[in-house]
Amino acid sequence: MTSKYRRLARQLQGQIEAGVWQSGDKLPSLRDTVKQSGFSLMTVLNAYQLLESQGWILAQPQSGYRVAPRQHSPANTARPALHAAEAVDINAFIFNVLQAGQRSDCVAFGSAFPDSSLFPQEQLARSLSRVARHLTPDQQLVLPPGCAELRRAIARRYAARGTEVAPEEIVITSGALEALNLSLQVLTRPGDWVVVEAPAFYGALQAIERLQLKALAVPVDVASGLDLGALADALGRYPVKACWLMSHCQNPLGVSLGAESRSRLLALLREHQVPLIEDDVYAELYDGEQAPLPLRALDRDVLHCSSFSKTLATGLRIGWVSAGERAPDIQRLQLMSTLSTSAPMQLALADYLASHHYDRHLHTLRRVLLQRKQRFYKALCQQLPEQVCVHPGGGYFLWLSLPDGMDATRLYHRALSEDITIAPGRMFAAGDQFRHCFRLNVSLPWNSRTEAAIARLAALARELIQGC
Amino acid sequence: MTSKYRRLARQLQGQIEAGVWQSGDKLPSLRDTVKQSGFSLMTVLNAYQLLESQGWILAQPQSGYRVAPRQHSPANTARPALHAAEAVDINAFIFNVLQAGQRSDCVAFGSAFPDSSLFPQEQLARSLSRVARHLTPDQQLVLPPGCAELRRAIARRYAARGTEVAPEEIVITSGALEALNLSLQVLTRPGDWVVVEAPAFYGALQAIERLQLKALAVPVDVASGLDLGALADALGRYPVKACWLMSHCQNPLGVSLGAESRSRLLALLREHQVPLIEDDVYAELYDGEQAPLPLRALDRDVLHCSSFSKTLATGLRIGWVSAGERAPDIQRLQLMSTLSTSAPMQLALADYLASHHYDRHLHTLRRVLLQRKQRFYKALCQQLPEQVCVHPGGGYFLWLSLPDGMDATRLYHRALSEDITIAPGRMFAAGDQFRHCFRLNVSLPWNSRTEAAIARLAALARELIQGC
Repeated sequence: MTSKYRRLARQLQGQIEAGVWQSGDKLPSLRDTVKQSGFSLMTVLNAYQLLESQGWILAQPQSGYRVAPRQHSPANTARPALHAAEAVDINAFIFNVLQAGQRSDCVAFGSAFPDSSLFPQEQLARSLSRVARHLTPDQQLVLPPGCAELRRAIARRYAARGTEVAPEEIVITSGALEALNLSLQVLTRPGDWVVVEAPAFYGALQAIERLQLKALAVPVDVASGLDLGALADALGRYPVKACWLMSHCQNPLGVSLGAESRSRLLALLREHQVPLIEDDVYAELYDGEQAPLPLRALDRDVLHCSSFSKTLATGLRIGWVSAGERAPDIQRLQLMSTLSTSAPMQLALADYLASHHYDRHLHTLRRVLLQRKQRFYKALCQQLPEQVCVHPGGGYFLWLSLPDGMDATRLYHRALSEDITIAPGRMFAAGDQFRHCFRLNVSLPWNSRTEAAIARLAALARELIQGC
Repeated sequence: MTSKYRRLARQLQGQIEAGVWQSGDKLPSLRDTVKQSGFSLMTVLNAYQLLESQGWILAQPQSGYRVAPRQHSPANTARPALHAAEAVDINAFIFNVLQAGQRSDCVAFGSAFPDSSLFPQEQLARSLSRVARHLTPDQQLVLPPGCAELRRAIARRYAARGTEVAPEEIVITSGALEALNLSLQVLTRPGDWVVVEAPAFYGALQAIERLQLKALAVPVDVASGLDLGALADALGRYPVKACWLMSHCQNPLGVSLGAESRSRLLALLREHQVPLIEDDVYAELYDGEQAPLPLRALDRDVLHCSSFSKTLATGLRIGWVSAGERAPDIQRLQLMSTLSTSAPMQLALADYLASHHYDRHLHTLRRVLLQRKQRFYKALCQQLPEQVCVHPGGGYFLWLSLPDGMDATRLYHRALSEDITIAPGRMFAAGDQFRHCFRLNVSLPWNSRTEAAIARLAALARELIQGC
């Protein structure tokens, strides 16, 4: 039988190996450990001394014990990372791609978010500090539909573009992703048919899988946008319960629908009485002079979803849906699943929006994003083999296609091994039709690092094509 | 045909009526409105002057136009509040009760949260300010599983109680509610059987409805806790996929399972290979000297869900699940639905927890909550008619029952009309068996206001009983 102090020592060692305590961390005092473990002071002291003799911890005169420095970081030496039990599927693939995109040592052409150094960090921090200092107990919890001042601020931004949206039609959500998911869920039941785009934002495909819906994928052309003939066909043949699409800066293609197509689209949906979920997260990131009107501006029955994640701060997780008469249903569903989004963040955002700097920031952001996109576009056209097409579009993405039959997933893996991420086409459709494509985030600054990464990407693409 | 300026005036008037612009708000400048609307300056000026003549807005020398003060608040005069389309169901009822609980003019005995004046507001604000000042672009987005420092801090709190939980088993969520919902969803498919308690936290009933599961409600006794015989029966007769319960400070009863019952419970679940979702949001709010061990401490296969909403700040919306080997599944599901919780909030919480004040705060919080509960318990026993039972339990709730056959929903409505909220029993079960019960939040300070409210509540209960 193992002695008590050895058992305690092994327990602490396990915690250090698991990263609960890291190099330099102060361990609980002998007294606290006695109290918590129920062991005698002598047992605890013996355990600590054993760990010290094994090099796990260091005694610090007057200040107890600390974890000793280690050769490797805990991430490398701790128990093996947990693995998913399921077979590899589209969600596992998307998850892996997104996780890889978080590595700060990568050139993140695969990222979905604009380069965060373009965001008004200091102004937001000031708003957050101001709110933190004056937060009253009453403001601590904001139940659905969310902070009234923030909903009014959003309603004013609609009003400034001539769209009538009352604050009570707006529900604040955890980013646009929750807004889109809640919208889809209030409109459907498992087994229902839903229209999505092909290619589509992968969040739509994941939501459909999660809610056990059936997808009708309507093609989107990289130049003209959604195929309205195919949409009419889908609506005519299936009992479609909702349509989820982007009319502006479609992700991943960057294409926007023209005025006539937009009218025809809405007429079609009205004819078949199918409600529209409009994903409009790139609303503020238009290339020209004039902001395009959301479809919501033309039809009150549209559930219009957007957020501040692409324009102000990726990590705030504040989005909204303007849901018209369905706002109470959305609120109830939110109350059942996440309750609400962080109250201080909502207040900080309302504070920032009240300062009138947002439009100035957006103006600069659009200008810089356009410049950067043009610089990358030029470099890619020059360096990529001619068999690779680069499709210019709105927003801060470029959509590229390798020759038919090739698999951009291979390019993704090769690039990743050289610390460059891209978003492979496989992420954007349930089928295989975009496997030869990939999306690049071109919001990054053009510098020696990104320039070298583009050169490597071009070389890898050339190798891949020549190897075929 | 209406003239342009009248159309514009009516549009602005609509925005004021809808609360987009409120009394005292500065309206967009004439120049901005010209730019946005495409109308001429003369048209815009005419519209503003018309609104001024009608008393909607006021011209301010040198500073444009502001919305005029109004007789009634916009909430009363704006377009009628949106109504739910669905028939009244348990969710609509719960929603209404929770919304009413938000009214700051009510004595909130119906609230689910402790009196927020007990929270360390200033220390949290300092952490939030500190984080805001030093937030780097890299920290802006924290994808699942959430901020590493916060997960380590939580793992240390487990370790301090002798429970081994590695940081990578923990997923940070939007409050415990998201943790519970994600846990239930990874374990089930629509149509599956799930064991819940009767009475239960209404969030469990809502999650089951939302995920289209079938519930087996196992009775919980106000003195002895979960009926293990009934549980064994349920597990033996149905293919149960998950069990969701609270072993400590059960909501709404406040009862905790004894050591022997806890072992038997876990043995039963192991025998039937049914995973347990443990809702442990009141873990820190124990009445005695020693913190009870979570069931997770006895069995690694338990998904242990908790949060800081009941101990630190209701509105942060930061919770977690310690999900063991299922952590990657939880992460994937979160990535599909809300993406992540607010990064600055996670960082602020990690900062606060690093300061070592949390345990001191909890110590005081437990002491004050116990004192307040005892005060209310005494007053209720003295003042309520003898037919009303008051059940003492752990935490900051009391569970009361009217005579069988009576409906506490009536008491709820009568109390609400006098600006007092209670949580009627109907919220805590799908069936009618707890309609005669209600839950009181007794974390409020004992003062003239709450004393008067208790007296009114006692009087209303007496009237109700005499009227029967």
